[in-house]
Amino acid sequence: VAEHFADRLMRACEDRGAPVCVGLDPVLEKLPDELRAAISDASDAAAVKAMGQWCQGVLEAVADHVPCVKPQMACFERYHAAGMDLYFSLVQRAKALGLLVIADGKRGDIGLSAAHYAAGLLAGSAGADALTVNAYLGGDGLEPFVQLAADEGKGLFALVRTSNPGGDALQSLLLQDGRRVGEAVGDLVAALGCSQPHYLGQGGYSLLGAVVGATKPGDAGKLRQRMPQQIFLVPGFGAQGGTADDVRACFDDQHRGALITASRSVTYPPDATRGDWHAAITAAAKQFKGEIAQILGR
Amino acid sequence: VAEHFADRLMRACEDRGAPVCVGLDPVLEKLPDELRAAISDASDAAAVKAMGQWCQGVLEAVADHVPCVKPQMACFERYHAAGMDLYFSLVQRAKALGLLVIADGKRGDIGLSAAHYAAGLLAGSAGADALTVNAYLGGDGLEPFVQLAADEGKGLFALVRTSNPGGDALQSLLLQDGRRVGEAVGDLVAALGCSQPHYLGQGGYSLLGAVVGATKPGDAGKLRQRMPQQIFLVPGFGAQGGTADDVRACFDDQHRGALITASRSVTYPPDATRGDWHAAITAAAKQFKGEIAQILGR
Repeated sequence: VAEHFADRLMRACEDRGAPVCVGLDPVLEKLPDELRAAISDASDAAAVKAMGQWCQGVLEAVADHVPCVKPQMACFERYHAAGMDLYFSLVQRAKALGLLVIADGKRGDIGLSAAHYAAGLLAGSAGADALTVNAYLGGDGLEPFVQLAADEGKGLFALVRTSNPGGDALQSLLLQDGRRVGEAVGDLVAALGCSQPHYLGQGGYSLLGAVVGATKPGDAGKLRQRMPQQIFLVPGFGAQGGTADDVRACFDDQHRGALITASRSVTYPPDATRGDWHAAITAAAKQFKGEIAQILGR
Repeated sequence: VAEHFADRLMRACEDRGAPVCVGLDPVLEKLPDELRAAISDASDAAAVKAMGQWCQGVLEAVADHVPCVKPQMACFERYHAAGMDLYFSLVQRAKALGLLVIADGKRGDIGLSAAHYAAGLLAGSAGADALTVNAYLGGDGLEPFVQLAADEGKGLFALVRTSNPGGDALQSLLLQDGRRVGEAVGDLVAALGCSQPHYLGQGGYSLLGAVVGATKPGDAGKLRQRMPQQIFLVPGFGAQGGTADDVRACFDDQHRGALITASRSVTYPPDATRGDWHAAITAAAKQFKGEIAQILGR
């Protein structure tokens, strides 16, 4: 039996010294000068090759310092099958370097289609360790993902409260029963994620976690109370305006149960366009980790 | 300037005699015996090859009879980059046969990531004619899709009310202002989809449509009133239990503005496993089209 995802993730965070995750959003226009200069033509193949070199460089730069990475699947799918080929290679390379991989695909469908996404993106050695999913279709949209994750020691993070300004339009609407829409989704995630004993790891956390942005003051604390056994995947710190207090509210009383992500601030630091971009990214990853460790009083 | 998607779709529905769409969900276990028998080994490549032959056969079987097809992206992503390569080939083949292609990807993300999905799945000749999207992240999650669609004469269908039983868990929750959550999403879609004059085609329909299942009696009619300028993409007829009345409620007073989809009932008819599966699929497509035409009194 595969070890439970939540236990694997919590241990990796302990080993590396802080619960942090580096987002991988390869965008051609942002790559270091060195890589951009070597692009031979305007073809997708040339672009994907440069992105692949950058991804490999980022993985090597951060692997000794952080427990996991989160590739943004949209950046790869943009380049069609060649981009997806790079994506699946990247998952292998990251794992080989000892990193956990959270595929940021925000997939969501029903029945058989949800099972196909789970099979393609999570299953077996080709699959990532975890996947972000969208809960708008309800519990029977999430269940096929949850069942495969349980069978294979993989994890999921359902979108509950996103960090973008427009997230409020739907997620903060008030229901007649007094809850916000985002809270109702959180309740659904908590109920499903704790509905079977084997969905919970030895540390008490569920394989079904929640995406909760760090940019909505007050919300994270309330959601923490509604989802005591969900690991929170937390975007929005730094670049998107999330503060130390916002981040702290995502953790439980033991300062556990959340994973803070940073993408652009770590992988595209101001000094990384020219010169030794590997070193600049390592330094940015260490600084990010230090900031989160300090917020947690470590 | 590219012709507006809504006008292209409405004209194609007129040309073919009914507003119907055939869903393409290639699943290895369901393929005709002839194709399964020819699979040389258990590799993904062999599976994808058989799926490709089936997809091509289905396209040829339905192209003269229906205006569009809807590939389910999960079925392709299941087979990693090789599956996605088949998906993008399929889009080309379908277009070459004169079919409109609605990519059923249910993608949803924010800002740059949404723009990457739009660039990968909708843009240019490699892109589909339209894409299904998830609105849970709010208007700023949809806008990058809408902007690219407007620039390129492409379309979108946002999930509003899905056909699965579990869709009620979130979509039918009652808000304090009296709306259901699905209605609030519908209002958001209607407002965004009509916010710029060029988002509307000459026929008055928006490039941003809505997915509204035919399995929730009463809901479609209410949503039709809230979204008078959205084209409804309607799953759930037949196999999932949607009735003629459910379907009728998705159309406007002129019996226009909706596109009814069927997948398994057309592409996996009972008699298609053995013998002439092309002919069986053509017959099933014609029967489906006839049923919808009859419901509309044509």
